[in-house]
Amino acid sequence: MKIALAQINYHIGNFESNIEKIKSAIRQAKDAGAELVVFAELAVSGYPPRDFLEFDDFINKCHIAITDIATKCRGIAAIVGSPTKNPDFHGKNLYNSAYFLADGKVRNVRHKTLLPNYDVFDEYRYFEPNKKFSIIEYKGAKIALTICEDLWNIGNDPLYTVNPMDELIGQEPDFMINIAASPFNYNQHITRNCILKKNVKKYGVPLFYVNHVGAQTELLFDGGSQVIDGNGHLIGELKYFEEDFRIFDTDNLQADQEHKPGDNYPEGKIKIGLIHDALVMGVKNYFQKLGFTKAILGLSGGIDSAVTLALAVEALGRQNVLSVMLPSQFSSDHSINDSEILIKNLGSPAQIINIEEAYTAFEHSLKPFFKDLPFGLAEENLQARIRGVLLMALSNKFGYILLNTSNKSEAAVGYGTLYGDMCGGLSLLGDVYKTEVFELARYINLKEEIIPENIITKPPSAELRPNQKDSDSLPEYEILDKILFQYIEQRQGPKELIEMGFDEAVVRKILKLVNTNEYKRHQTPPILRISTKAFGMGRRMPIVGKYLA
Amino acid sequence: MKIALAQINYHIGNFESNIEKIKSAIRQAKDAGAELVVFAELAVSGYPPRDFLEFDDFINKCHIAITDIATKCRGIAAIVGSPTKNPDFHGKNLYNSAYFLADGKVRNVRHKTLLPNYDVFDEYRYFEPNKKFSIIEYKGAKIALTICEDLWNIGNDPLYTVNPMDELIGQEPDFMINIAASPFNYNQHITRNCILKKNVKKYGVPLFYVNHVGAQTELLFDGGSQVIDGNGHLIGELKYFEEDFRIFDTDNLQADQEHKPGDNYPEGKIKIGLIHDALVMGVKNYFQKLGFTKAILGLSGGIDSAVTLALAVEALGRQNVLSVMLPSQFSSDHSINDSEILIKNLGSPAQIINIEEAYTAFEHSLKPFFKDLPFGLAEENLQARIRGVLLMALSNKFGYILLNTSNKSEAAVGYGTLYGDMCGGLSLLGDVYKTEVFELARYINLKEEIIPENIITKPPSAELRPNQKDSDSLPEYEILDKILFQYIEQRQGPKELIEMGFDEAVVRKILKLVNTNEYKRHQTPPILRISTKAFGMGRRMPIVGKYLA
Repeated sequence: MKIALAQINYHIGNFESNIEKIKSAIRQAKDAGAELVVFAELAVSGYPPRDFLEFDDFINKCHIAITDIATKCRGIAAIVGSPTKNPDFHGKNLYNSAYFLADGKVRNVRHKTLLPNYDVFDEYRYFEPNKKFSIIEYKGAKIALTICEDLWNIGNDPLYTVNPMDELIGQEPDFMINIAASPFNYNQHITRNCILKKNVKKYGVPLFYVNHVGAQTELLFDGGSQVIDGNGHLIGELKYFEEDFRIFDTDNLQADQEHKPGDNYPEGKIKIGLIHDALVMGVKNYFQKLGFTKAILGLSGGIDSAVTLALAVEALGRQNVLSVMLPSQFSSDHSINDSEILIKNLGSPAQIINIEEAYTAFEHSLKPFFKDLPFGLAEENLQARIRGVLLMALSNKFGYILLNTSNKSEAAVGYGTLYGDMCGGLSLLGDVYKTEVFELARYINLKEEIIPENIITKPPSAELRPNQKDSDSLPEYEILDKILFQYIEQRQGPKELIEMGFDEAVVRKILKLVNTNEYKRHQTPPILRISTKAFGMGRRMPIVGKYLA
Repeated sequence: MKIALAQINYHIGNFESNIEKIKSAIRQAKDAGAELVVFAELAVSGYPPRDFLEFDDFINKCHIAITDIATKCRGIAAIVGSPTKNPDFHGKNLYNSAYFLADGKVRNVRHKTLLPNYDVFDEYRYFEPNKKFSIIEYKGAKIALTICEDLWNIGNDPLYTVNPMDELIGQEPDFMINIAASPFNYNQHITRNCILKKNVKKYGVPLFYVNHVGAQTELLFDGGSQVIDGNGHLIGELKYFEEDFRIFDTDNLQADQEHKPGDNYPEGKIKIGLIHDALVMGVKNYFQKLGFTKAILGLSGGIDSAVTLALAVEALGRQNVLSVMLPSQFSSDHSINDSEILIKNLGSPAQIINIEEAYTAFEHSLKPFFKDLPFGLAEENLQARIRGVLLMALSNKFGYILLNTSNKSEAAVGYGTLYGDMCGGLSLLGDVYKTEVFELARYINLKEEIIPENIITKPPSAELRPNQKDSDSLPEYEILDKILFQYIEQRQGPKELIEMGFDEAVVRKILKLVNTNEYKRHQTPPILRISTKAFGMGRRMPIVGKYLA
């Protein structure tokens, strides 16, 4: 059987666009002689639809979409993900389902059994788990059809007490099809391939896997749809970060070349290359799907805004990203000079607005209250907020979206000003540790120097008071980021961290900073997620808690 | 058997304080001759601990707390909620459990079966559902012990396929005990009592119910712990919004007076009275638990900031709430006059800072870009943001927490300035529709006029341009709020709203405004939740979606 994998960038709730893309791929598959074309999980609605699923109107639109798409399935079958209503009185009102469409109508429906409800996932919020298992027969082939997480209960710490394929394998399927919406992280290409191969090795039949591609606000989907033969060999893997379409023949599964996931990146640069491409896609899709074209950002002369600018230019085009330099009396000369070189290298537009005039006005207005109190945090934040106000004024006036330039290390310890440098519609680097931002800068400079060397090598500084350095109030980033990674991604506690050899006082200080700054992160822009644990929807912490604080 | 109900205000992750409160209530119960004292769900950790539950260190601290508390249970037994580890290889790693402590040690443990995972709840994120059912025997009594949601699968749309009490009733319990963490909404006192009575009527035995009280950031717990006899009569109900403690005798369950939930409020004012008390508790606990005492807010002369001020003064004390009037050239005379009367009525401190100086400075700095473009949204937002910067400067300098004054109607349609009037550490009115804000003002004025009549009766205006009225760009609040309620709380779609008689164009405009302004609400402060559907953790929407938008 010739099976087409359609790896598509859907838009949540944009039924018109999603239906059109699906129909177009059905035509393409049919024209190319495929007998079955496979789409991703919840394809008609986009993933994750979140609480739109609680609206009957939204579910009805999904049903109408499936009925519409089914009419195009003549001379070809299609598997399409969609929510469906649970007809039973007891249990949640919906299933997360896969439709098998053929002969112009719905032929079979299968429901998802394992509903991920950790990190960024909330599927048990909406869906009833499936409890019935049966394969689908089509043109003499027996197909074990499952949905994403259904294949993932195969690791060392099984989250669920059932395994759908254990139930289906007794019905002797010829192959497995899994439709997925499995978000990216910089290890995901390996994890995914490893989990899928484990399934093939356990059940002994080939696997056809179709994933989402594209960004849905903070969630990035890298694609990487693939086919693995019954011996566990990767037969073909679809592109990362792009829509793709390929047809495979179940009777002739041969790898056209030796291929490993991530092969397209330079040796030793796979992680940072993936992060780079993921972020560029994230920015591009955010703007496209919102219908915006132009971005603005504050260029400080530091590495975070430099890398943000370079990524934004790659995503949106050099003419569409306006840099604004906002110097104060504390800005060093090199801040402007370095920024100007960067802008010249990129060929993108830039402006300068000195913040001293606004600062003086605020200073004067606040004088009756501040009197002769010494310069401090309030004055530092004031500068950052004036920059925020200026950038937002330009954003409002000319229709730019402001890009946030904070990195994950800063966001973690609260080293940033709420309503100041923490402003923005989207955070590009909020899931990228400072040490990784340096790696990104080096990666961007691989072919030619785009980010001036001085921006990469000078000591990081917020430049909000004379001769300020990040290292005045924080440990060196090499240490800080290691502690943060162990705490945030690995959920290690103070005891484990101290046992790893980190200084106890530093550990306790950092963990306290992370926990007491939850209130700031509560008000930050959505952060493009590239790790296994990003701030935002996947990390849910009390604000008024008192733990390690 | 004499059973004490201990209704306590816990602090998430503050083990020291929680343990001390629990031990103190055990002493009190023992001294008063009780044989059993009952605490709420997840009492040792506070509720909801959210992703703290993913840290082994946090779970270990819960275990240590239970061991510690058990040592005090000599001559008295206690039921205490805590997370426990799931020893099975398969399934999630934790249970949401109730410990039965007696003779100085852990005597029994029971786990929660029904794990709420809707609205503000994420319990399936952490916990494995219980599958074994057995009663606890103690001093000759058979006790059916369940946890919160376990009793709630009894309505018209059962979310779960099992009912724990159906399993337990066959073991012929003498009474039910349910430990809960059931958050407030303005109908909750009725809903709760109704659900609990349904259980008593179905199972025919008395019920002892212990709830949390107090605020955990946005979540408000109203208490209302209660005892219902086997005939469905309310024997006693503990206080709302306060810690409370009462002992009941299972051999002598008699209502000391005819009492209905909500009885303590004036006729026709129960809803708004509950909202008032809930908000005051919310503010008070937010400050107490964070260790802050002083609040600041911008007083515009409008009703939202007036009501916010009155509530804050009640919660924190008049001397602890600083009002700042921030007039511009567009402020009407009555804005300052009305505010001054309000401040006089409350006896709280106030300051005036004119924003024109800062505005002029920004205007000048932006002139090279704005040139002669007409005054518009950018200039309106600029004023709101200057106010935000000034308030935050005072907040940073003097240790105030800024109170946000936005209401739910504004938050819904995006009628507010990000980083301007949407600033703040906590939103008091973000779940209160504008029409309800008026009701709150009238309620606050019940005994004497605190909020000047003119603030209540004048047409709402943002005063960001000459002669601006909210009704210039929005429907009248009477209409707007009804549409918003149907869409947000009731999840009605455009079709249903139009069938209800609302104008189609207005409906489509409002629903589009709600959906396209998700990006603003993503960056707002936590909102005290008083309805069944508040913005924030209980309403999870895509930002880059395109549904009804």
